[in-house]
Amino acid sequence: MRLSRAFLPTLKETPAEAQIVSHRLMLRAGMIRQTAAGIYAWLPLGWRALQKVEQIVREEQDRAGAQEILMPTIQSADLWRQSGRYDAYGPEMLRIRDRHDREMLFGPTNEEVVTEIFRQFAKSYRDLPRNLYHIQWKFRDEVRPRFGVMRGREFLMKDAYSFDLTKEGAEHSYRQMFLAYLRTFARMGLKAIPMRADTGPIGGDLSHEFIILAETGESQVFVSQDLLDMDPLAEAPDYDADLAAAVGRWTSHYAATDEMHDPVAWEKLEASKRVSARGIEVGHIFYFGTKYSKPMELTVQAADGSTVHPEMGSYGIGVSRLVGAIIEANHDEAGIKWPDAVAPFRAAVLNLKNGDAACDALCDTIYRALGDEAVYDDRADRAGVKFADADLMGHPWQVIVGPRGAAANRVELKRRMTGERHEVSPEDALAKIKG
Amino acid sequence: MRLSRAFLPTLKETPAEAQIVSHRLMLRAGMIRQTAAGIYAWLPLGWRALQKVEQIVREEQDRAGAQEILMPTIQSADLWRQSGRYDAYGPEMLRIRDRHDREMLFGPTNEEVVTEIFRQFAKSYRDLPRNLYHIQWKFRDEVRPRFGVMRGREFLMKDAYSFDLTKEGAEHSYRQMFLAYLRTFARMGLKAIPMRADTGPIGGDLSHEFIILAETGESQVFVSQDLLDMDPLAEAPDYDADLAAAVGRWTSHYAATDEMHDPVAWEKLEASKRVSARGIEVGHIFYFGTKYSKPMELTVQAADGSTVHPEMGSYGIGVSRLVGAIIEANHDEAGIKWPDAVAPFRAAVLNLKNGDAACDALCDTIYRALGDEAVYDDRADRAGVKFADADLMGHPWQVIVGPRGAAANRVELKRRMTGERHEVSPEDALAKIKG
Repeated sequence: MRLSRAFLPTLKETPAEAQIVSHRLMLRAGMIRQTAAGIYAWLPLGWRALQKVEQIVREEQDRAGAQEILMPTIQSADLWRQSGRYDAYGPEMLRIRDRHDREMLFGPTNEEVVTEIFRQFAKSYRDLPRNLYHIQWKFRDEVRPRFGVMRGREFLMKDAYSFDLTKEGAEHSYRQMFLAYLRTFARMGLKAIPMRADTGPIGGDLSHEFIILAETGESQVFVSQDLLDMDPLAEAPDYDADLAAAVGRWTSHYAATDEMHDPVAWEKLEASKRVSARGIEVGHIFYFGTKYSKPMELTVQAADGSTVHPEMGSYGIGVSRLVGAIIEANHDEAGIKWPDAVAPFRAAVLNLKNGDAACDALCDTIYRALGDEAVYDDRADRAGVKFADADLMGHPWQVIVGPRGAAANRVELKRRMTGERHEVSPEDALAKIKG
Repeated sequence: MRLSRAFLPTLKETPAEAQIVSHRLMLRAGMIRQTAAGIYAWLPLGWRALQKVEQIVREEQDRAGAQEILMPTIQSADLWRQSGRYDAYGPEMLRIRDRHDREMLFGPTNEEVVTEIFRQFAKSYRDLPRNLYHIQWKFRDEVRPRFGVMRGREFLMKDAYSFDLTKEGAEHSYRQMFLAYLRTFARMGLKAIPMRADTGPIGGDLSHEFIILAETGESQVFVSQDLLDMDPLAEAPDYDADLAAAVGRWTSHYAATDEMHDPVAWEKLEASKRVSARGIEVGHIFYFGTKYSKPMELTVQAADGSTVHPEMGSYGIGVSRLVGAIIEANHDEAGIKWPDAVAPFRAAVLNLKNGDAACDALCDTIYRALGDEAVYDDRADRAGVKFADADLMGHPWQVIVGPRGAAANRVELKRRMTGERHEVSPEDALAKIKG
């Protein structure tokens, strides 16, 4: 995209309302724009990042055998009465009356809707197991929305729901999601730590939060260095095989949030292994058995002819929140440092002297070779403005083209994550960027 | 996807509430499920079709130079007071009060929000022209929602908004969208006819509807056969060039809806060229000048230092409605006949004798070769059930594998659109399907 024609506006001033770095940088880099309290529009730079994050989530859900659907944002209050949650949910639920005065709501989560959908179609044990997910906008009417997309009111969530015939089956589904989550966050360049968690308003017997470490994190976490040293991408799980051992390798190390922290167990760890840090929750998984299938009367016929309430779990990832979390974990004074996998654009081409024939021609050639994954700063601006904007927007690679270099067919290639710069030929620059 | 594990449920009975064929087929084929009046969940088959349609819309918007953003669903009533539309909009607007008793609404369209966003960033003529679009769920509280996704309450729309310095610029933006729309619908296998239209509640001076012909269409249309014979994909437009002549080739032929019909002009057409038919609106474009930029005080500085209200237009495509419209235009007694470009799956592999070693092996090989774009009917069901479901779901190709054929390494390849069947080698079947 040519910056002279793009809608990629940056702000020089730091917006006063932004308290944390990801919020500040997302506003300054022109990724988002607040349109009402806790509600954001995603501008092209932000929207591209959000789509990259969403696509990784989708791929890993599909790989683990979950199937994508899309449930609507507006739900009927009646369904929530069936589960007994309508009155219990509290003021975070955005309640709505339509023109016929029917009680509706903007879905904060989807256990009821998905149970109702599944109830229509599932008749027998042959229809199980199934895991259905969607990636849809949710609304929670936070009393004090803040931190930009980290705690907004309208937010994008991936939520999956598993249906199994038995508790053992449900545990297998839970483990599939457990391992899929580790891969999902690792592919985004994040180190996410699974921690035993309270089940809260979703309810249930078993729950893990996935938490990434960042200085600005919302909660205190305690984790063993051994866990931090593990690599979720070291081997691809076989999701059809027994996953107890694979999950056990992760849950056998100490990891806890404030609420679940056990100082006695903690003290037993070697002191050098004890890592105490701040964390940001990016995912949460639950096994809750028949908490919804029973009151909502979802049943299937088992192989022996008996009637069974399926065992369920639900599995959430904060997709829009992740964009903020990635920035919290990857930035410096000058701006964002996108990990390659989620960068809105892979590279920026900076033309330091617009109008210089050699500069223009070389920039054009490089920009065309990179295609849709590059921005071309062809604006009539000073070099300093271009450097600052490229650092702020955080493209992983910068190709810097000045008149002296262009005459000699050389460019400067900068790696945003490390700050390294090298003078190279345009061909070498392209080869590196395309990786 | 293996049907034995997939969530691709079909219904044998025709649901009583569905009055038109696309609604009936979408329910029977398990594409959608109504979760409240006029509100639908998209199940895997429907969701895949919706994504294919959405992706074609996106590609043609991008090609025409529009830039994608994402605006939120929930908007502030204050913005609509600035444009003067809040009180005017009527009961189709879903009005909401949040926990702080602030007046909000579920966006039925986005002229106000996008004008407000653009206002923050656009300062000078150098920031124009720009065309911003998004593909987002909208809500219109229809008094009597019906016809499934054709007239639902929560629906997916692509809406683009152009900002230009001059009326001539705005006309160019309008023509870009005009031609992009023709390509968009043609790529989906639809013949969409541009027709002069009333501007309605959006307002403005110039407007076209894009209407496809289908027996079950909601309105009567009158169109010259010459227009129907034109092919929008015959040549790719150069969107930077003057587009007046290219658009003129389309607008010079007679085409009108009921409301705009001119019987005198119609009678002047050769009788053999007069086509009178039913039509479904799938897109609508508007040029409305400063209708929003003036009351909302969006201004930029022109090159001569003067202050200018940008000239605007807006451009809508009913993305979820298109899925229904495509089915209205492509079906038979047995079910859906997907055009290749929007088919949820490209092919189905039908195993007529599960458990037969040769059948199983051959089906497996073919299914693996087709990958994610195929469904494999490996269910323990009769051949008749498999044939019926494949026809109902409408996959463009069916690969039918029976024990006799499998033993001889032959399969039957059926083309759903034409009904043609041929006995071929598995290799030839794959080559045809991959096209």
